[in-house]
Amino acid sequence: MKVVPTRGVSAPKGFTATGISCGIKAADKKDLALVFSEKPAIAAAAFTTNRVAAAPVRATKENFSPESQAIIINSGNANACTGPDGIANAWSMINLTAKKLGCKPSKVLLASTGIIGHALPIKKIRVGIKELKPEAGVVADQDFSEAIMTTDAFPKQLAVQIELNNGPIWIGGCAKGAGMIAPDLMPHATTIAVITTDAPVKKEDLDIHMKSTLNKSFNAITVDGDTSTNDSFFLLANGAAGDFEMSISEKHRFQEALDYVCLSLAKMIVRDGEGTTKVVEYKVVGAKTETDAISVAKTIANSILVKTAFFGEDPNWGRILAAAGRAGAVFDPDDIELDINGMAIIRLGVAVDYDLAALAQQMKAEEIQVWINLNQAGHQAITYGCDLGFDFVKLNSLYTT
Amino acid sequence: MKVVPTRGVSAPKGFTATGISCGIKAADKKDLALVFSEKPAIAAAAFTTNRVAAAPVRATKENFSPESQAIIINSGNANACTGPDGIANAWSMINLTAKKLGCKPSKVLLASTGIIGHALPIKKIRVGIKELKPEAGVVADQDFSEAIMTTDAFPKQLAVQIELNNGPIWIGGCAKGAGMIAPDLMPHATTIAVITTDAPVKKEDLDIHMKSTLNKSFNAITVDGDTSTNDSFFLLANGAAGDFEMSISEKHRFQEALDYVCLSLAKMIVRDGEGTTKVVEYKVVGAKTETDAISVAKTIANSILVKTAFFGEDPNWGRILAAAGRAGAVFDPDDIELDINGMAIIRLGVAVDYDLAALAQQMKAEEIQVWINLNQAGHQAITYGCDLGFDFVKLNSLYTT
Repeated sequence: MKVVPTRGVSAPKGFTATGISCGIKAADKKDLALVFSEKPAIAAAAFTTNRVAAAPVRATKENFSPESQAIIINSGNANACTGPDGIANAWSMINLTAKKLGCKPSKVLLASTGIIGHALPIKKIRVGIKELKPEAGVVADQDFSEAIMTTDAFPKQLAVQIELNNGPIWIGGCAKGAGMIAPDLMPHATTIAVITTDAPVKKEDLDIHMKSTLNKSFNAITVDGDTSTNDSFFLLANGAAGDFEMSISEKHRFQEALDYVCLSLAKMIVRDGEGTTKVVEYKVVGAKTETDAISVAKTIANSILVKTAFFGEDPNWGRILAAAGRAGAVFDPDDIELDINGMAIIRLGVAVDYDLAALAQQMKAEEIQVWINLNQAGHQAITYGCDLGFDFVKLNSLYTT
Repeated sequence: MKVVPTRGVSAPKGFTATGISCGIKAADKKDLALVFSEKPAIAAAAFTTNRVAAAPVRATKENFSPESQAIIINSGNANACTGPDGIANAWSMINLTAKKLGCKPSKVLLASTGIIGHALPIKKIRVGIKELKPEAGVVADQDFSEAIMTTDAFPKQLAVQIELNNGPIWIGGCAKGAGMIAPDLMPHATTIAVITTDAPVKKEDLDIHMKSTLNKSFNAITVDGDTSTNDSFFLLANGAAGDFEMSISEKHRFQEALDYVCLSLAKMIVRDGEGTTKVVEYKVVGAKTETDAISVAKTIANSILVKTAFFGEDPNWGRILAAAGRAGAVFDPDDIELDINGMAIIRLGVAVDYDLAALAQQMKAEEIQVWINLNQAGHQAITYGCDLGFDFVKLNSLYTT
C-alpha cells in the first residue's frame, strides 16, 4: 500500500474537487467545498444519531440516492436549529449545485459545519456555488480540505493506492475536527468525512465496507463527548479504475486500505482536538459483550476527571477505575487489570508494587496507551480520546464572542 | 418549619456526634467523624451504583441492619481499589467502633472518602476511634461536618424543626462535596450524606421517604459526571421525639422537611463544586417519559461544551440543543422550546428574535435557570449542574501530586 499524505479526495480517477471562500467565514478563509465524480458513483452515507439533526443532514437523508455524483459542503455555519428556512436553504444548496454541475438534484449530497442556530447566508453561498471549478490534483485536494475546516488547526487528508490484479486503485479521504467530537454515526460523525475511491465496488458491498470501517475509526474517537448535530460520512466509489470484479481477497485488501484511511483521519481529528496535548488510546479487553467493552472505553475516555488528570500528567489511576465502574458494564472489580503504557498497575483489582517515578515519566508522553482487562469474556473495544486542559477551556468558553 | 443553618446531625434528640483529627489528612485537619444514637434507630441507606464500589461500601452493604446505632466516617482516604486488605480494614473500623460504643458490630455503618487506591492507615484510625467522645451541640455538629470534608471549601449542614400534634421533631443533615460528584444512589453519592431525625418513623415508611427524597436531591445533582466509588447516604430515625404515630398529613410534612434538608445539602455541594463559578438548574418538561426527562437534563448538565460556555458566559445555546439531541430521548427538534432565566430563546425549534445583549447580561448571573420543553408529553425532571473553568482544570490536573 502506497500512502500519499499530500493527496486527498481527487486522487482516485474520475474525481475532481475544489474549495473556495464565499464569505461565510471572516478574513476570506475558505468555506465552500465540492467534490465531483465525472460519472455517477455508488454512494454510502452515515449521519449523526443526534435528534437535533441539522437541516443539511435532514435534507440529505431524504435526498440520498445510492447513485451520487457530487458532495457540496460549507463550513462556518452548521445550518442547525434554523427551522423551515434552514431546510429550504439546504435544498437550495442541493439544487444550485445540481444546476451548476448539470446533474439531477438527487445526485447531490450536502453537509454543513460551524456554529449552530445562525441563519445560513444563502446569498453568499449562491454566488459561491457558481464560482466553483473542480479539478484534480494536489492544489484541489488542499483547497477542499481547508474549506471544510472549522476550529481545525490543520487540514486532514490522505490518499492510498493498492495494486489489484487488474491494476491500481486509489482511496482518497478528507475529514474535519476539532470540537463537538464524539461521532456516533448511524448505521453506526461532529465530523464530516468524505472518502472517494475509483475501485469498482458493488453497491451491495459498499455499505458493508462502510459499516465495518466506521466502528473501527470515526465511531471510536471522542474529543469532548458531545455528538454533533451535523456529523456526516460519505463514501463514493465511481469504478473509474476499470470495469472488473474484485476477488474476495481483493475485497479484504480494499477494506484494509479503507480502514487505514479512515483510522488515520480519525486519529488526526483527536490529535487536533481543541486544546489537546495528548492522545490516549483506551483498549478494553475481556468484556462480557462488545457493548460493555465500548461502554467502558468511552466512559473512561469522556470522564472529565480522567481527562484533567492526563492533562496534569498525574498518575491518578483511581479515576480510570471509577469511570470504568460507572459505565454500566458487568464485571467484578476484584478481577480488573490495568496497564499504562505497558506498565502493570492493577492486578486482581489491587495496585501492584509499581515504580511511581517510572509511571510519572510515562504520563509525560504525548501518546498514552491505557489497557484494561475486565477478565469476564473475550470481547474488546478501542476508543481514542485526549486530555482536557486550560486551552480547551479557553477555546470553548468564548466560542461565539 | 424552623431552619437552623448552624446545626446538623446532633440536633435531633438522642443523637450525639463528633469529629477529630487522627492523622490521615495532613496539617491536623479533622478526618474521623462519628454520629451515635443512644437507642438503636431505624435505618435506611443507599449506596453508589458504581461497579468499583469501595471496601467500606461493600462491607456496609453486607453489615447493614435496619436497626443501626452509629455511623463512622473517615475522610482523606477512600479505601477503594485496595483489595482484601481494604475489606479487612473496613471491617476493623466497624468492629473497633462497636467496641468503643459498646454495641453490636451489626449496628455500625461505615463510609470513607478521599483518594482512591491508597492503603487505609488503619493504625492511626484505631487510635482515633478510641479517642472519639460524641456529644450533642453546635460544636459537635461543626466538628462532624468538617471531619467528612475532602476538597470541600466549606462544611455543609443544616437542621430543621417542624411542629407535629405531639410536639416538635427535628431533622439534621450533613453532606460533603466537592469532586467526583454525579450521585446515582441505589435504590436510586461521591457524596456522603448523613441525615438524622428523632421523628418516630416506621421501618416500612423510612425507605419510601428516602427513595422519594433522593431522586429530588442528591441524585439530581452533577459536578463532573463522575459517579464515585464511595457514595453513601444514611438516614437514621431514632423516635426520641416521642412514641406516637404520625398521621398521613404529618408524614407528608415530614417528607417535605426531609426534601428541604436533602435538596439544601445537595445544592451546597454543587455550589462548592471544584472550581465552580455558577450553579445552573436544568428543568426539562414535556418529556415522553421520566427517563427521557432525566436523561436530557443530565446529558446537558454534563456536557463539557455546555459547561465551558457557561464559564465563559457565552450565550452559545446551540450546545444545549446539541446535548439534548444526543441524550437518547424521543422528541422532534421542531417542537423544542428553550428559555434561559425566563427569556424565550427557542420556539418550535427555532431561535426567536431575542435580545442578545439582555441574554449576555443574564449569562453573568451566578444562578442560571435553563428551561427546556420537549413538547411530547407531561414528564419532567430537574438537574442541578455547574460550569467548568480554569480552576476546575487546575484543581483536577494535580490532585495526587
